[in-house]
Amino acid sequence: MGERHHQRHKPPRALAAPRNLVVVCAPLRSNINLSRIVRTAGCCGITRLISIGTARIDPKIARDAAEHITLETHRTLPPVVDRLGAEGYRLVGLEQTNDSKNIHQYPFESKTALVVGNERLGLEEDILAKLDDIVEIPVWGLPFSYNVATATAMALYEYCRQFPEG
Amino acid sequence: MGERHHQRHKPPRALAAPRNLVVVCAPLRSNINLSRIVRTAGCCGITRLISIGTARIDPKIARDAAEHITLETHRTLPPVVDRLGAEGYRLVGLEQTNDSKNIHQYPFESKTALVVGNERLGLEEDILAKLDDIVEIPVWGLPFSYNVATATAMALYEYCRQFPEG
Repeated sequence: MGERHHQRHKPPRALAAPRNLVVVCAPLRSNINLSRIVRTAGCCGITRLISIGTARIDPKIARDAAEHITLETHRTLPPVVDRLGAEGYRLVGLEQTNDSKNIHQYPFESKTALVVGNERLGLEEDILAKLDDIVEIPVWGLPFSYNVATATAMALYEYCRQFPEG
Repeated sequence: MGERHHQRHKPPRALAAPRNLVVVCAPLRSNINLSRIVRTAGCCGITRLISIGTARIDPKIARDAAEHITLETHRTLPPVVDRLGAEGYRLVGLEQTNDSKNIHQYPFESKTALVVGNERLGLEEDILAKLDDIVEIPVWGLPFSYNVATATAMALYEYCRQFPEG
C-alpha cells in the first residue's frame, strides 16, 4: 500500500452553509461534561450552544472550541425551549421515554435544537412535554446508560452523518 | 401526545450473537479516557477490550462495565495486532492518515478489531502499516480533533448502527 503516514489535524471539511443545529444543555452538574460537549460541537462545526445553569467551560478540555462557539447561558430551560420553538427549530430531546425513537432511524431536520439533560435527572417532564421528538441511542449492555457527553457526541455524529455538508 | 414520561435505564436491546468487535487501546495517558471507553463499550454490548500499557480502569467512571468487560492488558501493541490479524479480525485503525477512509461510508466487517491511539501521538507508523484499513471521523471546525474517548464512542456508534443485532 505504499507508505501510510499520519495526517493529523487535517484541514476541516467545508460546510455549504453554517450548521443549523443548536445544542441546548439542561443544567449540568459537571463542568467537564459541558466542556467535552463544547469540544465535540466545535469539531462538528456547530457554532451555537446554549447552557442552562452554572456549569462553566474549562478551556483545557474544550480547547479552541471555547473561543469559536457562541455560548449563551440562561437561568432556566423552559423559556429557552419556547423561544427556539418559536424560531422554527425542531425540538429534539436526547432521552429514554415511553415514546422515544431509535436515533438510528430518525431523520433529523436541518434546523434542530438538540436538548440534552442533566447527568442524573435527564430531562424533566415539563420539558419533555414541550419537545417535538425524543430520540434515544440504543443500549445493549451494562451500565445501560451512556455518559451525557458521550451520548451527545453520538447524536452529533448522527446529525453530521445526515448533513455532511451542513 | 398523551403523557410522555421517562423510561430511564430501559432494558437493553438483544443481540442475536455476541458482538464480534474488539476494542484495542494503544497506551493511553489518561485513566479517565480508558474508563470512558470501557463504559461506552459496555453500553454497546462489547465484551472484550485490550489495553496496552499502564492505564487503569476507574470504576467510578466505567461503572458496571468494569465488571462485565473482559479486559486484557499487554505491554506492547505490535504482537497484539499480529495475533488479532491471525485470528481473522479485520484490523481497523481510528486515525487521520493519507489514506484514511471516511467512516460515514465505511462498511465495517462484523469481526473487527478497532485500534485507537494515544491522546497525543495517535497510532504509531509501525502499527499503521499493520492495519487493513484506517477510518477517520470528519471534522468541520476547531479544535480539529476529537478527544480519543469521544472519537471511539462515535466509531462504536457507527459499528453498532451497522450491526444493531450483533
